[in-house]
Amino acid sequence: MSLHVFDAALQLQPQAEGVYLGVTSPAWANMVGPFGGMTAATVVQAIVSHAQCLGEPVSLTVNYLAAIADGAFTLQLRIARTNRSTQHWVFEIQQADSDGQMQCVLTGTAMTAARRDTWGANDLPMPQVPAPHTLPDALIPKSVVWLTRYDMRGVVGGLPQVWDRSESPLPLHEASLSQLWVRDRVGRALDFAALAATADIFFPRVWVRRAHWTPAGTVSMTVYFHADSAQLAEVGSGYVLAQARGQVFRKGFFDQSGCLWSEGGVPLATTHQLVYFKE
Amino acid sequence: MSLHVFDAALQLQPQAEGVYLGVTSPAWANMVGPFGGMTAATVVQAIVSHAQCLGEPVSLTVNYLAAIADGAFTLQLRIARTNRSTQHWVFEIQQADSDGQMQCVLTGTAMTAARRDTWGANDLPMPQVPAPHTLPDALIPKSVVWLTRYDMRGVVGGLPQVWDRSESPLPLHEASLSQLWVRDRVGRALDFAALAATADIFFPRVWVRRAHWTPAGTVSMTVYFHADSAQLAEVGSGYVLAQARGQVFRKGFFDQSGCLWSEGGVPLATTHQLVYFKE
Repeated sequence: MSLHVFDAALQLQPQAEGVYLGVTSPAWANMVGPFGGMTAATVVQAIVSHAQCLGEPVSLTVNYLAAIADGAFTLQLRIARTNRSTQHWVFEIQQADSDGQMQCVLTGTAMTAARRDTWGANDLPMPQVPAPHTLPDALIPKSVVWLTRYDMRGVVGGLPQVWDRSESPLPLHEASLSQLWVRDRVGRALDFAALAATADIFFPRVWVRRAHWTPAGTVSMTVYFHADSAQLAEVGSGYVLAQARGQVFRKGFFDQSGCLWSEGGVPLATTHQLVYFKE
Repeated sequence: MSLHVFDAALQLQPQAEGVYLGVTSPAWANMVGPFGGMTAATVVQAIVSHAQCLGEPVSLTVNYLAAIADGAFTLQLRIARTNRSTQHWVFEIQQADSDGQMQCVLTGTAMTAARRDTWGANDLPMPQVPAPHTLPDALIPKSVVWLTRYDMRGVVGGLPQVWDRSESPLPLHEASLSQLWVRDRVGRALDFAALAATADIFFPRVWVRRAHWTPAGTVSMTVYFHADSAQLAEVGSGYVLAQARGQVFRKGFFDQSGCLWSEGGVPLATTHQLVYFKE
């Protein structure tokens, strides 16, 4: 039985204590290099697979320092501190440049925790949207390989059909809002790695905000995992509602705020990004 | 002329390339150890003061691994990569434990950039609230020293007057919402370090959400700086409107989403936290 393409891309070869060798997967190619969500997922998988990992992921920040090149990369992963019920991680990905010098292409930090039952509340209820099976399969540009790995059902805020630089006429809190149902196209079950990848599926908010195609790329992504593995198991290979909206666009950068819910309305993760845009 | 207490607390002694010695300041004491915002500010100041710093802060993530003890600490700060117009930073703070062993108490990453003029939009307009001078100076518990450094004018979501575990009757998007005007009490002008500190002034959302005092502390804070130094100079020593609301509270952690605006309505920074709470 062959590995699912997502799991195949997560594979790392341990080289030494905290050092892993990986190779980007053509199955997850973006316009340039690999899908950033896949890279984030690779780090998350390395953490949860670590022999000394305490608990489950709660917080993750990944910084994309440069376009990751297709090919080999080295992940360095270190436990910065282990407390009674929480653990902090520091990581970095390096690649050789054209001169053979190792250059840092990604940095980040994460926290895992053994979670306890407490009082809880969901102050981010899932918006009322049509069920995924009532919506058409999104028309995905096949030139972007990683997009074909997902079954996406758009609700609002899809890619502009006309790139006419017409700023959104919607109220500001909807002007760059995208909502879509998403799941792995061939039925891989959701886990922490897949959830991290899903947090990065949004195309740049600036595109929908002003119907203008401009180069853009994620600089920093933070994911707060609210679900534990039991809740992720309940999702299985089902749909997740993914929502993101831009907040402030200024001088080459914008930020977005997002949330991922299970079809049953459970908030699985909240996520934020700082994104570069050219103009 | 003596230094302002904020600037005095920012002082670091360079020890070696990328290694600085600091000492926590009693003037910024929290209930245990120093105010976390002051620690974040110290890192930001070290970055912007660095001889090789490119541009101005755009993104910052700080993880609090343990309560920082009063006394000496060591900051390690490293440039992970310098691109044409962006630069990525990695840092860590260590303190000696009771056995004299150095232990990591804080990790983080930051990005600075030389920003260019582009199209822009503010999709997070400042909420309509009463002007700061029309509101009373907040009654601040003097037992928490750092709070006395700020002039705070509460709008909504102040500390509960009665801790009766009565869950907020407000709609969910207001149930843990706090809005307050804040400025340095003795007129220090806002800069990137002070803005980073201000991003951490909110008491735990869980307290206002359910009128229940429970131990809580920030685990990870991310700040996206939208303002440049020219906009911060315009704020000067004026008020900033600080807003935060909780999103998901579950199994010992909640996240919050916040924004800081100038009195003129300019969004200076958006900020997010993942916060531990006991029950």
